[in-house]
Amino acid sequence: MEKRTEIGSLGEFGLIQRLSEGFVSHQPWTILGIGDDAAGLEANGFKVVSTTELLIEGVHFDLSYTPLKHLGFKVVSIALSDIAAMNAIPAQLSVGLGLSNRFSVEAVEELYEGIKLACEEYKIDLVGGDTTSSPQGLIISVNALGLVAEDQLVKRSGAKPNDVICVTGDLGGALMGLQSLEREKQVYLANPDMQPELNEKNYVVMRQLKPMARFDIIHDLKELGVIPSSMIDCSDGLASEIIHLCNASGTGARIFEKNIPIDDETYLVATEFSLSPLTAALNGGEDYELVFTISQSDFDKVSKITDVTAIGYMTDLPNERVLVMKSEQVVALTAPGFGPQ
Amino acid sequence: MEKRTEIGSLGEFGLIQRLSEGFVSHQPWTILGIGDDAAGLEANGFKVVSTTELLIEGVHFDLSYTPLKHLGFKVVSIALSDIAAMNAIPAQLSVGLGLSNRFSVEAVEELYEGIKLACEEYKIDLVGGDTTSSPQGLIISVNALGLVAEDQLVKRSGAKPNDVICVTGDLGGALMGLQSLEREKQVYLANPDMQPELNEKNYVVMRQLKPMARFDIIHDLKELGVIPSSMIDCSDGLASEIIHLCNASGTGARIFEKNIPIDDETYLVATEFSLSPLTAALNGGEDYELVFTISQSDFDKVSKITDVTAIGYMTDLPNERVLVMKSEQVVALTAPGFGPQ
Repeated sequence: MEKRTEIGSLGEFGLIQRLSEGFVSHQPWTILGIGDDAAGLEANGFKVVSTTELLIEGVHFDLSYTPLKHLGFKVVSIALSDIAAMNAIPAQLSVGLGLSNRFSVEAVEELYEGIKLACEEYKIDLVGGDTTSSPQGLIISVNALGLVAEDQLVKRSGAKPNDVICVTGDLGGALMGLQSLEREKQVYLANPDMQPELNEKNYVVMRQLKPMARFDIIHDLKELGVIPSSMIDCSDGLASEIIHLCNASGTGARIFEKNIPIDDETYLVATEFSLSPLTAALNGGEDYELVFTISQSDFDKVSKITDVTAIGYMTDLPNERVLVMKSEQVVALTAPGFGPQ
Repeated sequence: MEKRTEIGSLGEFGLIQRLSEGFVSHQPWTILGIGDDAAGLEANGFKVVSTTELLIEGVHFDLSYTPLKHLGFKVVSIALSDIAAMNAIPAQLSVGLGLSNRFSVEAVEELYEGIKLACEEYKIDLVGGDTTSSPQGLIISVNALGLVAEDQLVKRSGAKPNDVICVTGDLGGALMGLQSLEREKQVYLANPDMQPELNEKNYVVMRQLKPMARFDIIHDLKELGVIPSSMIDCSDGLASEIIHLCNASGTGARIFEKNIPIDDETYLVATEFSLSPLTAALNGGEDYELVFTISQSDFDKVSKITDVTAIGYMTDLPNERVLVMKSEQVVALTAPGFGPQ
């Protein structure tokens, strides 16, 4: 039988101390780590960017198919993806946990294993931790700080008409991973002897369980000397992100169905579920790819990055946010977060 | 009947936009407000300090006696109290909300009214907001950033033997306010026609509902040219905070019952509840006063601040964390968060 240590046997401060063991500092900027009221960051000539995510069990994740270690990694990726979207370098992380009494010390340690892996992957410092009780389920709040040089900061608002709209990686996979995991859960609930059939869905499942913040692309752009005119990360689906960029920049956008990058496995799984792969890409969300715009003069340089696809361009018609279908039909982009339209 | 607007009728982004209206920028450091993936802060020659709080309905607050506007103000005070404890100046705030479908747009606006009041009181900028659904109750995550000059940062770890231990304001009041509100709730539940009897408990009730982060004291210390050797804010009770300072600084501490500041009303209400006012001060928590140490050479200067009380001194015996009673009996300080001892 696995060991189960009750959280009460350590106390809040004992738990935080135990969870924080083995985290090393990667960042020269860190002036204060865990163990003070606030974390500290020294920033000579850099701007500090900050983002907070709140993730709630039953809303943002389902622990029946999300291993705690993967969840730990994922929450860090989600927060850092916002830092990447500012063209910044990630520096510090702090994590607050609300824990119902269903969780043991060992369970929380597993979650922290994933957080530690992510801190090593992204070379960031865990500088704050806080645990509290929760009446129901697991609640995770993550705050990340990043740094960006004076002239490198990229906002949502800088896009100009005729700028090229680019996306990294491919889209829609995370939703297909979620659908696959949800179906296996239903199969398992109906018959607990069934083995999960996820062998041929490895790519989409990992898109859901272990997304990566795209600092590789931020690095490539820097190497090429390209600063995007606007940028956002793809957390709510491509359509939503394009609308955000247009709203902030006062531009319109035309994107082309034929150019939207969708992985073969995403396509196959969507077909299996009788879902449209295009809808998965436009409204699926959780892919954590970057959506950015560049001036046409930077286009040749950016074409050298293999994992970036040009999908359309900004226009000077602020009310035009459209998708040109393969059939050449033109349809308006819509996204749920914006409410009834 | 009061107007009730469903959150779904605005959408997530519409809600955030509506809530963020009327917030103005107080801080020259703010380079990015609401509307990008991350918030931004420019910090030339300053260190940036950051803190995150996670507050959960049913654990940290009870909406049956906490007006949403007060709650909004309080969550900001709680986060900023950590910034004060670093001897820093508060600059930016971001708020994440998890909302069950019990909450209307109007309810969330009331919460934001309190947040706005606090932003004006503390002269800070709201730079980020995020809302999500919650399966149960209200969940609030608050992140605050502050700035502190290179040589002004105060940690928990700098106390030396013989340093004087000081506290601001008075202690135990917030717990007595909570007890009073809890009793009125029980009375109301037993008989909804009863009117609350809180007239003579105004001070302790306000200690619970509307705590203040003590930047007035941070300012006084700066005026006097005094930098505390260590500091912490009093969120878990005096005993817990003294143990934290001792653990971080490698010192012991002797504090004196006769010096611990307790307001007359706190004393009276505690007596009424057959509770020990001393225990309320030592283990009550939520007073958000500052506990700090100064070298003896700074003692005369600090004595000029009317709302600061010297309660004891640090010793060179790391295992000695004791309270000297009025009876001259010496008892060990204990605090719940540290687990079984």
